[in-house]
Amino acid sequence: MTDNQTVRALLADLPAGVVVTDPDVIERYAHDDAEWAPYELPAALVRPTTVEQVRAVVARCAEFGTPIVPRGSGTGLSGGANALAGSVVLSTEAMNAIVEINPQEHLAVVQPGVINEDLRKAAAEHGLWYPPDPASAPWSSLGGNVATNAGGLCCVKYGVTRDYVLGLQVVMGRGEVVRLGRRTAKGVAGYDLCGLLVGSEGTLGVITEITLRLRPARQGAEHTVVGYFDSLPAAGRAVAAVTEAGIVPSALELIDRHCLTAVDQWKNMGLSDEADVLLLGRSDLPGEAGEQEAEAMLRCFEAGGATWSARSTDPVEAEALFSARRLAYPALERLGPVLTEDVCVPRARVADMLAKIDATAREHDVHIANIAHAGDGNLHPLIITPVGDDAARLRAQRAFESIVDDAIAMGGTVTGEHGVGLLKRRGLHRELDPAVVAMHHAVKNALDPLGIFNPGKVFGDPAEPAH
Amino acid sequence: MTDNQTVRALLADLPAGVVVTDPDVIERYAHDDAEWAPYELPAALVRPTTVEQVRAVVARCAEFGTPIVPRGSGTGLSGGANALAGSVVLSTEAMNAIVEINPQEHLAVVQPGVINEDLRKAAAEHGLWYPPDPASAPWSSLGGNVATNAGGLCCVKYGVTRDYVLGLQVVMGRGEVVRLGRRTAKGVAGYDLCGLLVGSEGTLGVITEITLRLRPARQGAEHTVVGYFDSLPAAGRAVAAVTEAGIVPSALELIDRHCLTAVDQWKNMGLSDEADVLLLGRSDLPGEAGEQEAEAMLRCFEAGGATWSARSTDPVEAEALFSARRLAYPALERLGPVLTEDVCVPRARVADMLAKIDATAREHDVHIANIAHAGDGNLHPLIITPVGDDAARLRAQRAFESIVDDAIAMGGTVTGEHGVGLLKRRGLHRELDPAVVAMHHAVKNALDPLGIFNPGKVFGDPAEPAH
Repeated sequence: MTDNQTVRALLADLPAGVVVTDPDVIERYAHDDAEWAPYELPAALVRPTTVEQVRAVVARCAEFGTPIVPRGSGTGLSGGANALAGSVVLSTEAMNAIVEINPQEHLAVVQPGVINEDLRKAAAEHGLWYPPDPASAPWSSLGGNVATNAGGLCCVKYGVTRDYVLGLQVVMGRGEVVRLGRRTAKGVAGYDLCGLLVGSEGTLGVITEITLRLRPARQGAEHTVVGYFDSLPAAGRAVAAVTEAGIVPSALELIDRHCLTAVDQWKNMGLSDEADVLLLGRSDLPGEAGEQEAEAMLRCFEAGGATWSARSTDPVEAEALFSARRLAYPALERLGPVLTEDVCVPRARVADMLAKIDATAREHDVHIANIAHAGDGNLHPLIITPVGDDAARLRAQRAFESIVDDAIAMGGTVTGEHGVGLLKRRGLHRELDPAVVAMHHAVKNALDPLGIFNPGKVFGDPAEPAH
Repeated sequence: MTDNQTVRALLADLPAGVVVTDPDVIERYAHDDAEWAPYELPAALVRPTTVEQVRAVVARCAEFGTPIVPRGSGTGLSGGANALAGSVVLSTEAMNAIVEINPQEHLAVVQPGVINEDLRKAAAEHGLWYPPDPASAPWSSLGGNVATNAGGLCCVKYGVTRDYVLGLQVVMGRGEVVRLGRRTAKGVAGYDLCGLLVGSEGTLGVITEITLRLRPARQGAEHTVVGYFDSLPAAGRAVAAVTEAGIVPSALELIDRHCLTAVDQWKNMGLSDEADVLLLGRSDLPGEAGEQEAEAMLRCFEAGGATWSARSTDPVEAEALFSARRLAYPALERLGPVLTEDVCVPRARVADMLAKIDATAREHDVHIANIAHAGDGNLHPLIITPVGDDAARLRAQRAFESIVDDAIAMGGTVTGEHGVGLLKRRGLHRELDPAVVAMHHAVKNALDPLGIFNPGKVFGDPAEPAH
């Protein structure tokens, strides 16, 4: 068998422990955190510790035509790291060194297995800050963040992962090790192949080193503004008012009553007694300007029709409210499997989209809770089904596709920050013109001519199995 | 002849006036502003007014295998818009409508011929701001800015053109009209083909519409900090001190004594009596925070060894100093042809690189003046030669290549913001690994399979003629 041939060769090529074939271990590395995304058992898991080992794995897989499924920490929500039968899952978790933090150049060089939050802590020791803050920051790796172009709470002001990737070292499809991008603040020498690799979800190569732009650490505390609303349209009006007022908050998050109730049932915070919808805004402008911006945001919340709103002057209280935001997802997971949506719509359509989602929940008889990076129109409808209820699962999957279609109809995108993986492939084909999909295939064939990297993902035919 | 066949077909396909064959007009459109970059006379100039006309031109050129040289306003400094014999120059200047400015979504939709400054003015009427500000902003088009990923003074804080391009409409190599990117704040559906087109210097397609991210207009005046230095190393120390202090200025520009002298000879501003090197910093933080940042920058200038430094509280005086920055280039052009460099080095190496440039000027017996976006390490050594002095021209060209090599040796890039065009092709091949150049060719062949877009530019063999 081809895969056994590959595995035998890899076992011979690589130091003991790098190639794993234990079925129990392999099963744990065969999928990410996406609910109901299909996966199969790979032929082996490899955990290289050096770029030379990565190169050796890619060269062997190229030789035998064996698919490689690159994997960070497996916290993805679209099935992008799900394995195919006979494939090699290449986990970068063991390449986890912070190579350099450079206060002169405001940059860091890291291996792909470094956990997002570990870099944030290390940067802070040098007075620097790595902004991208996906909710998975305590567990997700920077390699995975780069491969999916991860977002987070502070993107509304500070942009997404791609905005911080200066350079990459990548092992490409014939085992070539290349450096893309640069270490300088600017540069336009040739195509932006570095940016092309960011968000390519493991379909073009394996990232083995990342040069990241850092910012100076922010000074002083953020100002938090809290708004309670009795309807989603009212909260949506408040969000639109913030943008129209020319405010760029450092976070603007929405949590609906389903999330608040789930958090209350778990942590007894009493939030759902107070509000149907909670908006949390933040300003990080320094000094007086931050206070003024927080005041201006407060007036936007009031103008939207908040039933109660206030600037939270108590940092403990502010932190508690943001912890409700973070607890929403695990609180809902206690109720059953959660199918996570990730559509992004124009900011002014947030209220319309939330109303549509409400209608979709009723139409398909499913329970949908909403958290949203409201400030940039990125919604995470969370579709919860009872454990083992197959009929509910089918209804949930139909609701998922319905939300995707509604987002496209509103001029939005099927995925704001989680990536296409397996779950959004139909949506991608709905969103992109066939000529643009053809461009994707052309680029893929040009850079991965043997087709070994993560086959079937992202723009593969969703009607076919993943491989 | 192939080209006549193409021109005959285009004359039949397109409305009167769109296809121009008058040799006097064509001569003016045969090159950009790059000094001594080779060019030839094209077979025709076309000035389409609609995307359908662009599509028709590309389809005809694809049919006959005729090269297309896309052109914005022709203000480029690398020869990227220089014509080949028999080619069709496609100028987008007649597609100059601002389609939409949207305060709800903080975006603008423009045709490629819109002049940078015209968008800035139109955005300002809606309380919005388009940051990228190349020195050519009063004359350069947004299509050209996107094709070269143009920079400017405020990139040090606000990034380059690519950071503002949300979406593009492009006519690709077989006449397909595609939309890349999006209108939403975030999105990760597929490869970043939009970002790939940005900075591709007309080698992949013709941009026919651009969706640009805007920011809220800045409130209040910027604070200007002025530093006089008696040596380049001292000014370089001040620049490094600013970065290390965690300051992100909204501009940090360096002007050397050669520029100051040229400006004085023209405008009699008396600057060169005061300083050998002038540093101009700006802070645009609102309120008190801006004053504090300006004070902190002032202390960095002093720590670097400024002979005199001050916060300019008089906006007229501050504007006069920045006008000296803007006047440097035309002032030098009065002295003879100016060969413009555009290397970018790590910030901490600015002083070293300036010292190297000084040594290069002596070694090659040429006159080199320096202006620099010092805050991001982007230097513009300007090599001035007497009119008609062929020996000096050869020495200048050798100095140009020597500076490129020194920038690479310092971990820099051969072009920070002007693009590769023709003049930096040797440099690009010095900077990029052959495997990375091969990736460029693969992407080019994948997306422009007939090879009709701007052949020979960017990564073409610099030893060969441009075509």
